[in-house]
Amino acid sequence: MITRRDMLLASGGIMIAGGTLTSSTAVADEAKELFFHSTTPNNAEPKLDDLVKSWITPTKHFYVRSHAPNPVIDPKDFQLKVEGMVNRPSSLSLKSLERFKTRSTTATLTCAGNRRSEYNAEGKVGGVQWQSGAIGNATWQGVALADVLKEAELTPDAKHVWFEGLDEIEKGGGIIPFGGSIPIAKAMIASGAGAPLLANSMNGAALTPDHGFPLRTLVPGYIGARSVKWLGRIVVSDRPSPNHYVATAYKIVKKTDPIDWTESGPIYRYPINAAICTPNANTNTKLSTGEIDLSGYVLPTGRPGSTVKKVLVSADQGKRWTEATMVGKDNEFCWQLWNAKVKVTAGTKRLIVRALDTSGGFMPYRVPWNAKGYLQNSWYQLPVQVN
Amino acid sequence: MITRRDMLLASGGIMIAGGTLTSSTAVADEAKELFFHSTTPNNAEPKLDDLVKSWITPTKHFYVRSHAPNPVIDPKDFQLKVEGMVNRPSSLSLKSLERFKTRSTTATLTCAGNRRSEYNAEGKVGGVQWQSGAIGNATWQGVALADVLKEAELTPDAKHVWFEGLDEIEKGGGIIPFGGSIPIAKAMIASGAGAPLLANSMNGAALTPDHGFPLRTLVPGYIGARSVKWLGRIVVSDRPSPNHYVATAYKIVKKTDPIDWTESGPIYRYPINAAICTPNANTNTKLSTGEIDLSGYVLPTGRPGSTVKKVLVSADQGKRWTEATMVGKDNEFCWQLWNAKVKVTAGTKRLIVRALDTSGGFMPYRVPWNAKGYLQNSWYQLPVQVN
Repeated sequence: MITRRDMLLASGGIMIAGGTLTSSTAVADEAKELFFHSTTPNNAEPKLDDLVKSWITPTKHFYVRSHAPNPVIDPKDFQLKVEGMVNRPSSLSLKSLERFKTRSTTATLTCAGNRRSEYNAEGKVGGVQWQSGAIGNATWQGVALADVLKEAELTPDAKHVWFEGLDEIEKGGGIIPFGGSIPIAKAMIASGAGAPLLANSMNGAALTPDHGFPLRTLVPGYIGARSVKWLGRIVVSDRPSPNHYVATAYKIVKKTDPIDWTESGPIYRYPINAAICTPNANTNTKLSTGEIDLSGYVLPTGRPGSTVKKVLVSADQGKRWTEATMVGKDNEFCWQLWNAKVKVTAGTKRLIVRALDTSGGFMPYRVPWNAKGYLQNSWYQLPVQVN
Repeated sequence: MITRRDMLLASGGIMIAGGTLTSSTAVADEAKELFFHSTTPNNAEPKLDDLVKSWITPTKHFYVRSHAPNPVIDPKDFQLKVEGMVNRPSSLSLKSLERFKTRSTTATLTCAGNRRSEYNAEGKVGGVQWQSGAIGNATWQGVALADVLKEAELTPDAKHVWFEGLDEIEKGGGIIPFGGSIPIAKAMIASGAGAPLLANSMNGAALTPDHGFPLRTLVPGYIGARSVKWLGRIVVSDRPSPNHYVATAYKIVKKTDPIDWTESGPIYRYPINAAICTPNANTNTKLSTGEIDLSGYVLPTGRPGSTVKKVLVSADQGKRWTEATMVGKDNEFCWQLWNAKVKVTAGTKRLIVRALDTSGGFMPYRVPWNAKGYLQNSWYQLPVQVN
């Protein structure tokens, strides 16, 4: 854990002799670096050329996904409740979390709705209209969720762990927190790159308000929605959380009706995915004929033992494929950046990237439409105009 | 409902003056018409040319999927228990079920593992090694599950309905029944082609022992596993059944480990699917060049409002596609048979069929491998040798 003093410095609301309050202004600076889909709550993604400038995504270029305005939390008063199917329920201050071993991990987070807007060609999908920037790779520090759960002593029926945020979301005429849920077997991984953290630090600094200050979960290999920000409560249970964002939202459904919600389980993992980030103007990318440089990202599926096998690009509708070269650590839970050269001709209508992983996973030509527009990982096809 | 006397006649174990006991010998005759993957329990599928002889599949050509030897049930003693989140739990004899309105429906059942063996090219999958015959279309008669549940009066928390068979499956050192589970919103559909039945009749006769005598569920539009045979108990609950065949088996998983089982929800629906049935020798189909006749089946996804849009066949690796003509009722819950002519050349390596539905569903070129080999609906590719 970073210390409580660091946290107080970062809270932006408490003067400490000798401390410099930078977080509020830093947030304002960051805002300029992102494209905001909405500001109440904050939902924003970076420009794609910014996104591939470094393997570690600077916090200012890290997408923001929130369901309510950022809660204002005084770290002095903060308490994390640990409840449910445990023999020793507790309420933990930030100070008391410091007694657990500090762990850090580098992991990519991606929104289940990344690339959602591509579904609209087939039928309008609701939600934040993400392009392909709802992804980022950061270094996270905190304590292992498993260490906290071990101290709480799970009862034998424990099968799932719920997370509840301190945010306040207006929903169905009431106020609910954002909630997540993960299987107990995942929660109890205490070490290694796949271990879920209770993180208070991102890229070496205290979490910003947009990223969950003072504490969030960080679940490597799972969709971003399971990495609950502004974490206030952990509940151990024999079933997944009944919170709206587990029981209803974040599911693959054809229609948003009661049968479909109940038939479909919560999404936990994401499939292998990739995008072209440069050149990329999203809708009107102009190119000259000849060999050009492409770059982008590729994210393996977040499953232990499964990494990226290859990334392939094409400028001729898939007749010929060129293998890209990788940049960054080859890891199950992190993206890699890639570079490739392709020959653009007068007949080039689009640039395409697809990727394969080492466990047989692949980006398909087309993904069946779903009503909420999740898990879009079809071939990434960038329309271009060639002069 | 067919009457109790009909049922007694069909039970095969009880002599009645004037009755002719045909069911035991009928089962023996049927056995010759199917290819048995196993006999204890019975798991069998028809030859593909038999399968497409008629839109209604004769019981003798209907695939059999069992997890334990057929239980021997005396219909005189039979009781169906209705329990759980209901105000009026009950135990219903076959006679007492006759007070509910008789309903009949024609619906296709298909095993979630149909076409499983095709996954083996990529990696061995466990379970019955189904070819493409684990599908059939029959007329079912019985009472609406919804009518029985209405009489039992659901409590407000009711969200799922569990089914339990009277079979006895050895599992993990103990004996368990086969179990299924469906969402309450599906269970409460009382009429129309999608209404789940408690069926005691198949194709105008009492259920055979292989098909669940004396009573089974029939859930149109869901994988066959939810149509529980030898039904003995219905439990209304706020969650899906904890039975092994809901909580663990019949899920899409990459590995059979605890995290994967918990991450994945039960399969309810199947995607659009099709196969070539004639000519088809599965592995060594010999053809001469020239125009040939193809036939097969196509099953839409079992979702209200979604029917088959088109079936396309190709003899040249997908360069050209010929649209097939349909035979049989165009219905969300029933297959159709199809016919097409394609030109076979010396270069023809395989015949391919794919299909599209009216809600944007399609058979993909390839389906990601899963450890249990479920929901294989990639392009059906039949290798052929051309003389």
